Amino acid sequence: MNSTPKAVCLLSGGMDSAVTLAEARAKGREVYALSFQYGQRHQIELEAAARVAHEGGAAEWRTVTLDLAALGGSSLTDDLPVPKDRAQEDIGQGVPSTYVPARNTVFLSVALGWAEILGADEIFLGVNAVDYSGYPDCRPEFLRAFEEMAQLATAAGTESGTRVHIRAPLLNLDKAAIVRRAAELGVDLGLTHTCYDPVLKGDLHLACGRCDACRLRLKGFKEAGGSDPLPYAEQP
Amino acid sequence: MNSTPKAVCLLSGGMDSAVTLAEARAKGREVYALSFQYGQRHQIELEAAARVAHEGGAAEWRTVTLDLAALGGSSLTDDLPVPKDRAQEDIGQGVPSTYVPARNTVFLSVALGWAEILGADEIFLGVNAVDYSGYPDCRPEFLRAFEEMAQLATAAGTESGTRVHIRAPLLNLDKAAIVRRAAELGVDLGLTHTCYDPVLKGDLHLACGRCDACRLRLKGFKEAGGSDPLPYAEQP
Repeated sequence: MNSTPKAVCLLSGGMDSAVTLAEARAKGREVYALSFQYGQRHQIELEAAARVAHEGGAAEWRTVTLDLAALGGSSLTDDLPVPKDRAQEDIGQGVPSTYVPARNTVFLSVALGWAEILGADEIFLGVNAVDYSGYPDCRPEFLRAFEEMAQLATAAGTESGTRVHIRAPLLNLDKAAIVRRAAELGVDLGLTHTCYDPVLKGDLHLACGRCDACRLRLKGFKEAGGSDPLPYAEQP
Repeated sequence: MNSTPKAVCLLSGGMDSAVTLAEARAKGREVYALSFQYGQRHQIELEAAARVAHEGGAAEWRTVTLDLAALGGSSLTDDLPVPKDRAQEDIGQGVPSTYVPARNTVFLSVALGWAEILGADEIFLGVNAVDYSGYPDCRPEFLRAFEEMAQLATAAGTESGTRVHIRAPLLNLDKAAIVRRAAELGVDLGLTHTCYDPVLKGDLHLACGRCDACRLRLKGFKEAGGSDPLPYAEQP
């Protein structure tokens, strides 16, 4: 019998979830990586997630199709324009238009179902300090409330079964700290994908360098004193 | 400007959610009905949901695809056998194999996202007393915890915005009471679908009459002193 503790890890293909997977592995967990095809515009996010799961040593990687676009309401699933060239101080203020309503709640709920099937008692996700100022479902009080709810939602909660814990190891890190942590854990950030609005050049998708996600990522590398291995269409 | 209060209502196509939709309408809500294509084996559930939404006066009906079957773990999405001919006293004891892990949590989470988009402050769902003894995510304490979590999950929760309330008007009713309530509200239960394992006869899908869902439904009609308008392959 395999007694390695199992954990489900939400994997977007971005930098944060790649480092989160590495944190779970570094803690000795057998990691079950979970990605979503949720009507987002970019298949390349899922390709990045596949690379990260494989290189990051996940025991399994599953993709769940979830057609959130059917409900509309966000520029990541709709055809609304992605905000560009926003001043650094505006990023993380208010709820951005790239917020998909209740997305983390939905993703964590599906992860909870898989955790129950697997007998995993931890769910890792890569939310962090930069994100949670703008996205309500990235706040620590939300994660605690989700854990409380999860305790009552599952069959495990009705028996002597284990409680599922929500782990957000990057919660108090900024992007620069995450870049440094990636280096410590040996995560190849060149495998990840961050851009909200990639630019096709020949066969290659280049990061735009101008959306909020690119700007935060580039700022993180700059502050950490490293250089981003990803190709960019332009850099501010 | 339309000031009719909006509500999202989870709609499975079964008896309970049909009556729940009618309760929301009777309370004067503009109802947005939400169904899921979640890898369940029977498309006829969705056909029933479409009929119920239309006849029940929903303002809109949307179906979200959610491939929970990708995670396995239940006889409603897997090819495990559906329990048959169980004694009445065994139904609702323990967690049945038809439990889809965290299903209500996932459905409520998607409903929460839609509620946020619509500006709806209520989510109706048809859980009831007979179900919640067996399914952990049908218990009232789960619904309360979900509401707490929802308050923190949404953009509404971060502003002066309205709190989303979870409404389960059938929570304390048994099947007989639900059959009576359907009659009071003018719900045609012949539009609904309940059976876990329908039998194809010619072009018609007949309810099996033997799975837990059929047996509870038939018992409800018997106790309410009515007769079920649905055709059955056999009745115990």
